[in-house]
Amino acid sequence: MHESDAGLLAPGRAGSAAEAATGDHAFLQALLDAEAALTRAQAASGTAPAEAGRAVTAAADAGRFDVRELALRARAGGNPVIPLVAALSAAVDEEVRPFVHRGATSQDILDTAAMLVASRTIAPVLDDLGRTADTLERLAAEHRDTPMPGRTLTQHAVPTTFGLKAAGWRSLVLDARDRLRTVRGALPVQLGGAAGTLAAFPAPDGTPAGPGLVAAFARETGLAEPLLPWHALRTPVADLAGALAFTAGALGRTAVDVLTLSRTEIAELSEGSGGGSSAMPHKANPVRATLIAAAARRAPGAAATLFGSLAAGDERPAGAWHAEWEPLRDLLRLAGGAARDAAELAGGLRVFPAAMRSNLGLTGGLIVSERLAAVAAGRVGRARAKEILTEAAGLARDEGRPLAEILAGEPAFEGLDLVELTDPARYTGCAGTLTDRALERR
Amino acid sequence: MHESDAGLLAPGRAGSAAEAATGDHAFLQALLDAEAALTRAQAASGTAPAEAGRAVTAAADAGRFDVRELALRARAGGNPVIPLVAALSAAVDEEVRPFVHRGATSQDILDTAAMLVASRTIAPVLDDLGRTADTLERLAAEHRDTPMPGRTLTQHAVPTTFGLKAAGWRSLVLDARDRLRTVRGALPVQLGGAAGTLAAFPAPDGTPAGPGLVAAFARETGLAEPLLPWHALRTPVADLAGALAFTAGALGRTAVDVLTLSRTEIAELSEGSGGGSSAMPHKANPVRATLIAAAARRAPGAAATLFGSLAAGDERPAGAWHAEWEPLRDLLRLAGGAARDAAELAGGLRVFPAAMRSNLGLTGGLIVSERLAAVAAGRVGRARAKEILTEAAGLARDEGRPLAEILAGEPAFEGLDLVELTDPARYTGCAGTLTDRALERR
Amino acid sequence: MHESDAGLLAPGRAGSAAEAATGDHAFLQALLDAEAALTRAQAASGTAPAEAGRAVTAAADAGRFDVRELALRARAGGNPVIPLVAALSAAVDEEVRPFVHRGATSQDILDTAAMLVASRTIAPVLDDLGRTADTLERLAAEHRDTPMPGRTLTQHAVPTTFGLKAAGWRSLVLDARDRLRTVRGALPVQLGGAAGTLAAFPAPDGTPAGPGLVAAFARETGLAEPLLPWHALRTPVADLAGALAFTAGALGRTAVDVLTLSRTEIAELSEGSGGGSSAMPHKANPVRATLIAAAARRAPGAAATLFGSLAAGDERPAGAWHAEWEPLRDLLRLAGGAARDAAELAGGLRVFPAAMRSNLGLTGGLIVSERLAAVAAGRVGRARAKEILTEAAGLARDEGRPLAEILAGEPAFEGLDLVELTDPARYTGCAGTLTDRALERR
Amino acid sequence: MHESDAGLLAPGRAGSAAEAATGDHAFLQALLDAEAALTRAQAASGTAPAEAGRAVTAAADAGRFDVRELALRARAGGNPVIPLVAALSAAVDEEVRPFVHRGATSQDILDTAAMLVASRTIAPVLDDLGRTADTLERLAAEHRDTPMPGRTLTQHAVPTTFGLKAAGWRSLVLDARDRLRTVRGALPVQLGGAAGTLAAFPAPDGTPAGPGLVAAFARETGLAEPLLPWHALRTPVADLAGALAFTAGALGRTAVDVLTLSRTEIAELSEGSGGGSSAMPHKANPVRATLIAAAARRAPGAAATLFGSLAAGDERPAGAWHAEWEPLRDLLRLAGGAARDAAELAGGLRVFPAAMRSNLGLTGGLIVSERLAAVAAGRVGRARAKEILTEAAGLARDEGRPLAEILAGEPAFEGLDLVELTDPARYTGCAGTLTDRALERR
Repeated sequence: MHESDAGLLAPGRAGSAAEAATGDHAFLQALLDAEAALTRAQAASGTAPAEAGRAVTAAADAGRFDVRELALRARAGGNPVIPLVAALSAAVDEEVRPFVHRGATSQDILDTAAMLVASRTIAPVLDDLGRTADTLERLAAEHRDTPMPGRTLTQHAVPTTFGLKAAGWRSLVLDARDRLRTVRGALPVQLGGAAGTLAAFPAPDGTPAGPGLVAAFARETGLAEPLLPWHALRTPVADLAGALAFTAGALGRTAVDVLTLSRTEIAELSEGSGGGSSAMPHKANPVRATLIAAAARRAPGAAATLFGSLAAGDERPAGAWHAEWEPLRDLLRLAGGAARDAAELAGGLRVFPAAMRSNLGLTGGLIVSERLAAVAAGRVGRARAKEILTEAAGLARDEGRPLAEILAGEPAFEGLDLVELTDPARYTGCAGTLTDRALERR
Repeated sequence: MHESDAGLLAPGRAGSAAEAATGDHAFLQALLDAEAALTRAQAASGTAPAEAGRAVTAAADAGRFDVRELALRARAGGNPVIPLVAALSAAVDEEVRPFVHRGATSQDILDTAAMLVASRTIAPVLDDLGRTADTLERLAAEHRDTPMPGRTLTQHAVPTTFGLKAAGWRSLVLDARDRLRTVRGALPVQLGGAAGTLAAFPAPDGTPAGPGLVAAFARETGLAEPLLPWHALRTPVADLAGALAFTAGALGRTAVDVLTLSRTEIAELSEGSGGGSSAMPHKANPVRATLIAAAARRAPGAAATLFGSLAAGDERPAGAWHAEWEPLRDLLRLAGGAARDAAELAGGLRVFPAAMRSNLGLTGGLIVSERLAAVAAGRVGRARAKEILTEAAGLARDEGRPLAEILAGEPAFEGLDLVELTDPARYTGCAGTLTDRALERR
Repeated sequence: MHESDAGLLAPGRAGSAAEAATGDHAFLQALLDAEAALTRAQAASGTAPAEAGRAVTAAADAGRFDVRELALRARAGGNPVIPLVAALSAAVDEEVRPFVHRGATSQDILDTAAMLVASRTIAPVLDDLGRTADTLERLAAEHRDTPMPGRTLTQHAVPTTFGLKAAGWRSLVLDARDRLRTVRGALPVQLGGAAGTLAAFPAPDGTPAGPGLVAAFARETGLAEPLLPWHALRTPVADLAGALAFTAGALGRTAVDVLTLSRTEIAELSEGSGGGSSAMPHKANPVRATLIAAAARRAPGAAATLFGSLAAGDERPAGAWHAEWEPLRDLLRLAGGAARDAAELAGGLRVFPAAMRSNLGLTGGLIVSERLAAVAAGRVGRARAKEILTEAAGLARDEGRPLAEILAGEPAFEGLDLVELTDPARYTGCAGTLTDRALERR
Repeated sequence: MHESDAGLLAPGRAGSAAEAATGDHAFLQALLDAEAALTRAQAASGTAPAEAGRAVTAAADAGRFDVRELALRARAGGNPVIPLVAALSAAVDEEVRPFVHRGATSQDILDTAAMLVASRTIAPVLDDLGRTADTLERLAAEHRDTPMPGRTLTQHAVPTTFGLKAAGWRSLVLDARDRLRTVRGALPVQLGGAAGTLAAFPAPDGTPAGPGLVAAFARETGLAEPLLPWHALRTPVADLAGALAFTAGALGRTAVDVLTLSRTEIAELSEGSGGGSSAMPHKANPVRATLIAAAARRAPGAAATLFGSLAAGDERPAGAWHAEWEPLRDLLRLAGGAARDAAELAGGLRVFPAAMRSNLGLTGGLIVSERLAAVAAGRVGRARAKEILTEAAGLARDEGRPLAEILAGEPAFEGLDLVELTDPARYTGCAGTLTDRALERR
């Protein structure tokens, strides 16, 4: 179809599990699953024949419906459930029709479907995060004692280790995993009827079926049972927004680091299989990191729209609800695509300890000036120590001489082994201990 | 294709001209158009055979390429141009191949295509805005003197007219049109080569072809010629972001007004053909206004991402550029869908002057208390006037009596015709003059 | 001071506890508290004299420092801790100076201070949310069976109750409380030194003091102990962003409802003491709801910036960190101001059951058309029932006659009490049960 | 005052002209200026005594009012104008009082004041942008032919020049200047009265004074005359949002480049006076670039809120308007602070051509592989050329040998001067021409 999107502008998600789980086909299937589960729940509650549940379930196959036609017919009422109910009704025998969508409102089905889609999408995202965390754990352990420059505000500060860096990345991945798991476990069905009172769902005795039906609906879908219909109480969507934007952003931290550390001049890391360039045969671009970084830039805007939709009026808002659908899907795809790329990135990452070591030497020892200042301060006082180091730093920078050489003869360091003292690899503090500690987290 | 989106979650844009102009097919065609225009520009500059220009142009037919396959192959390098160049090369004769994409970088083609897509999308958006403005002009003229309650902070304030309201809506529509027109007229081609120096585009004598080739490329595409390659100078994208977010927001103002004024209790307006509800046969929902309002809620988040991408580093940023593609398309669709819905909304809008008149009476005259206070102030001073009106307002509210009755006998109004003075229709100030003035704008 | 802000543009927060807890004075105090706690922690670890801890604590009084001067001097290094350390050092005796800020980096202090400020601000916010929830609980219980129109897409849909509405508002308030409590309980100290390795914090034996010092620092501040220094792992800030944006948005839902329901034409609710207008003595504006609604509109943009800062590079990012400070404070103020206003709004809310009842009658019974359709469907089939009701709805709308009258004589309803059947108060479904259920939540 | 902000968290703006022009004092003065101009305009229109205009103008001195008290009193009605009118009235003689704020609504004054503040803030911002552009022009001219690596997706691509880079930065600065100038020139007064009908502004003959008074008000303030009152038509605010977010983002591009190019490993640029570190005497942080980058990260969120407020309902919206005040001020400060920092950054920037040259050599000639591929393609065909270069690139990378050496003897380059061909400085394409062209723009 000419109007459709097949991922041409979205290499970050193309071919990912999240893409397959969020496409129109998957969404349509979730809408149908919600309808079928509702009929089955009514059957289980004794207000619909068991056969109706079976028949609607059998008919609820996305492959039998025309997504584009539903999309166009959705314009009249502003949502796709209205034409879908008509189409689904037409797909079942006449005696089953009264039990299709009975008592429900469009939002019951669309919200439930969105939760199903979210649940189904997050499952493989959790897998990708798990794989990423495992790989980072291995990298962190392997490089527990690999020194590299610690950089702050773009400048060499003091040494750190690649193990600690990788452990930090992993820590964010686990934070994302924990948040997504928690949110996924609480995704609720939606069921309230026209204005959230459950008025049109009768029990066998004609009184309203009430929360019991909601529980049965939850069981049939595998989603959680909410305390109240949440047509205008959008906690589940806002929670998804927060957890998904967190995931994209957290992975973005790794991506930004990889982008920096794989710069031509730094070259401490590279992606296993960088992307090529048609014009420049030598280039190996950090493509996975680039795509993750792009996702991290986009997620906040989508999350902002969803947080904005919390301020929803009435029993169903005119606009705030409709504004959620695509941004929620975008966020699922951004987080899901980023998680897939993060797993690939971590899996293929090449680490160059020699480059790290070489870069540590770039400042001729200035990278440990903090240490030298502390040592000197204990001997000649803080103020004098600072003077000595500032002067020495100037000389080191201007004359390109190593600090150990410049400070040789300086009384404040008399009797100390300046070569050892200025060795960056011997000033990594608790990096190893912190790495061990971080890796204990499961 | 199961992974593709055909508008199921997007009734605001389904079937619109903006959707057709921004789908993957349209984008692919624009990419191909950019490639073909580049080869033709080189032919025109004497550095490619004329035949190559014709051959690439003939091959540049989106229908001949598999969008999904390109999307998947785009993952390796992070953008769809790399596989497209391979596919386009394969589609032409061997002697033409050297002239496909020659000297260009992926971004030259993708950015140029994005500008083509923007230009082609905005054209019908301008039409829809023009139609909307025309309809609103007619409505404003027709209701120049139709009084209605002016509402501030949700409360009746003083009377206004529906003519002035519609003229205000139109004013925003014209503001949107002006901004979109200006931006559209300046949309530039992108051409810089690998790092924006045009180094790989030779003139016939072997020296760089330079800006002349850019001018030829601009002529072949119909886009503007930029002063500099703008790989990392994203003014055109930011300008689009501003104008498109403005358009969605400006139309959102009309939508929000229509949503309020078509409330069951207010009923001063209704959409010509409101959307139905499967469960509630009586409902006529303001669906067009709802969908526009949803677009207005989403546009700012997308625009924020694009403004954020201005801070792009290097000669091509790793992430900031990639983060633009889908949000820019989203914005085109949101503005385009909203413009289509606005034209439909305006065209079908039903106005109920009787309801406006009836609502004007709801406060028993309090809606003109400002006027009474001013009149009384001229007679008994501001402070005393305020006292009188505050007391009268309390009585009117509590006892449900009209203000004219309550104030009869009050010395401050002695000799004045209180019925006329409290007639809301006689206190619309310059609403008529302002409406006339606003409608003079073309 | 002429450059300072004292809340002139911020009536939503002026005078609130959140404002006092987040002002520059409070932030400065938190910075000083962090410095003092760090010196005490070192004293407790045996690497600083106990006297130093006492002296720094005594000097750490915001009243003794010039906020504006610090702000101006912060420009040189880009953060206020650098000049503050100088000023604090100058405020203690010479022998104490080596123990001021020893081993720390600016970010250790600023991040810890931000967490202290967040913790201190959220405490009163939780109180306000608690008060709001209690008041809403009372309102919900009192109006458990007060029928009112349920509205969807701005139109009357089916009846609901004010009890269920208020219970829904409360449910969101409790969701906000739970999220804020969870986040507050986990707010960590920051301690890592120059690049997060704790290298410059020696134990008494000269080896790095390590995580033990972080634990001591946590004890001294009352904050949690983090697993790792989080200079570039911004989970705590992102979690705050999510919880605070949720809070503002969740309260925004109540605000938007109050704004609608206090419209002149609807008048089912009013704020206890609406804001006046100088020009219009009769106006009683829903000011509290307006200010909450404004906060809900602003929070998503601030949260987006904070989620964006997750993608932080290096051991301290150049910009992403600095971009957090003011938006985090904004969010604390927006959520805090909204919580204060929500407590006032709930406390003073006036409910008008008679207006609700009267509005229920506006559609002449159409508001229960869903019920009638269901009843008729059971007798004459779904299709015929829909026909009957659609026709009757049209007549009711056009002729202004009650549905009970129009349907009298219609065979589908033969033998039924149409007056009862069309009584909105008898079609509130499970609203009461749901309200009870929701109020059981603590 | 303890609650006030004096810039402690805002080094990006502390001490800037934009800060002084946007503080509460400046805003209060602008509110008073608006009130005084309105009285003078009425005097000029013959509906107030000239003496009243003079008296209100004399009283309209911000120094005479207590900002904090006004802020607190603003809570009752939700905006600061209500208490200000009371205070201003009290500050003039009794006979003048009727002419204070006569006919106006709070929004007339607040919006007009916001436009005055915007106008007064943008003036020095334009100066800073002008200074920045001038400095960049000088830098670009000076370094017209200074080669440096062109970098795409973080990797060396092909050579460019620092002149072209600086010319690109300047181009964005000029784009920002043009957009701000255009918007500033159109900033309108606001005047409409309670609901935008101008009903309460009488002409001497008692009829409404109408647009003539608006024109007089515009003259007195120096702002533009709007076509319509724009209480709910927020084009001026959205236009400011777009231009200010553009400015911050455009300057952010320079900042991000400077941050990268001043990295320890790259060292092609440094800020003239980098920020120091208390702990690390050797550090010279790119503080100006950091603060600009932070502003660029924050501006999109603020702009998003303002674009969101376009969808404003009624004659004055309940929330959308109130949500504008602080974000608009934030944007003025972010753009103003960034412009000040950009001027300082450009003014002090140190350029290291030797480092650029040295970095150009890092890939042993691979940075011109595009050129070699093109040359070889002309001799042996595209495919074979690519093979040769890919193999040579691999050898160059793995063995660290220069490309000229590896390719010596390769038949495809027979007879060519490989040293010249692989000299990056001879492959800068049209960088010089483009720089010249860009600098012609004024």
